[in-house]
Amino acid sequence: MSGFADHDLTRNAFLGRSLHLWQPRRGYRAGVDPVLLAAAVPARAGQAVLDLGCGAGAAALCLGTRVPGLRLTGVELQPAYADLARRNGAENGIALEVVTADLSDLPPDLRQRSFDHVIANPPYFRAGAHTGARDAGRRVALGEETPLDRWIEVAARRLAPRGYLHMIQRAERLPDMMAGCAGRLGSVEVLPLAARPGRAPELVILRARKGGRAAFRLHAPVIMHQGAQHLGDREHYTPEILAVQRDGAPLPWPAR
Amino acid sequence: MSGFADHDLTRNAFLGRSLHLWQPRRGYRAGVDPVLLAAAVPARAGQAVLDLGCGAGAAALCLGTRVPGLRLTGVELQPAYADLARRNGAENGIALEVVTADLSDLPPDLRQRSFDHVIANPPYFRAGAHTGARDAGRRVALGEETPLDRWIEVAARRLAPRGYLHMIQRAERLPDMMAGCAGRLGSVEVLPLAARPGRAPELVILRARKGGRAAFRLHAPVIMHQGAQHLGDREHYTPEILAVQRDGAPLPWPAR
Repeated sequence: MSGFADHDLTRNAFLGRSLHLWQPRRGYRAGVDPVLLAAAVPARAGQAVLDLGCGAGAAALCLGTRVPGLRLTGVELQPAYADLARRNGAENGIALEVVTADLSDLPPDLRQRSFDHVIANPPYFRAGAHTGARDAGRRVALGEETPLDRWIEVAARRLAPRGYLHMIQRAERLPDMMAGCAGRLGSVEVLPLAARPGRAPELVILRARKGGRAAFRLHAPVIMHQGAQHLGDREHYTPEILAVQRDGAPLPWPAR
Repeated sequence: MSGFADHDLTRNAFLGRSLHLWQPRRGYRAGVDPVLLAAAVPARAGQAVLDLGCGAGAAALCLGTRVPGLRLTGVELQPAYADLARRNGAENGIALEVVTADLSDLPPDLRQRSFDHVIANPPYFRAGAHTGARDAGRRVALGEETPLDRWIEVAARRLAPRGYLHMIQRAERLPDMMAGCAGRLGSVEVLPLAARPGRAPELVILRARKGGRAAFRLHAPVIMHQGAQHLGDREHYTPEILAVQRDGAPLPWPAR
């Protein structure tokens, strides 16, 4: 895939229209997940942030929209997505350095840098599980070519002491995420995201800290939608999720 | 500790007075945890159940009260608790075989048997974390002498194919529990138990299956108490928890 033609792209508003992202019409399209991921990160102006597998830049640029003055770097394997991420950064006036590379084989200069935060929204399905995807870019973005353990290993190496990893992923991958943290990152916290009250959480946000020594913490689930069931076409997000999506608010992270 | 004198014991009612247990006045005393553990186990008449670290027999005898016709075996390291468990079984008319042994060093005949269910309520604190306990029995029951990984290894060895492990433990030990299951047990499910809505779960019940191949599942928390905060002296359990404690009902386990 050498690049997207403009007619292959759509331009979508995020965070109450404070951010506009070009995305492939048919490839991997950012939903609410990178928005929630970015909203969970307690980054402060001046800090360095690395987005592993940044795609078109949704998570990094959502974070950059909420917290000005970050030094944002994204790593993306697929050149066409890396180009989109650069374009999205430039058009939104957010400095985003994008390195086209396999996260398993980062270029030497990146391997010598450390970051206050690493964020990642790794593919949700194991390689081979969704061989049906017709689009190669979507297949790479959805199908896991790199094991989660490797994502966490690379993140841990790039984190500065006391730096945070935040990763959003399907809840069923929690064992792999926790195994990946073992011996590398501490103070692990899991924030489950459930569609509705009483429903099993489908997604989790993992927070872990380099050099952290606090006990593991499983938090109460964040509820995404109001009401016990889906009603009509509108999403009916809870106020907390609506504030994240519409006002660019941070996602309130529970006390330990 | 050679044994308890009667004046060192209290006799307490469980499951709406269908079960009465002698317990040491000052040692480890069963609370709601073994009751919930037993309520989570989908055992059927005729099946064999092993309670690792059975103490005075609370979990095994709660299960035997709800499900008649089980073949119940308990393993207990401390002879005085093992004696209590035998007495509690006999006085409640429930056949409970109690083996006095270290679960890490089971006698040969037990090592040749397999069980449809293994249940365990391992100590909640790591050895050394609570050196202040004045009572030796309570210290052994509360302070972890055997790593959780070892509990799960022994459980996995004793389980028949398709057999279930259920373990209740503090939520902060989830990483150890999940690591213990890796490569030994599958179809892992975690049922968090939270004091109140929106509170982080303090306990979890782990369910895992020998030879299970289903994806990991994190369930919505079961809420223990009604209302947003503690009101007065009464516990105000939710109806679901009250039914378990008062009526000996099973704990409804969410669909996968």
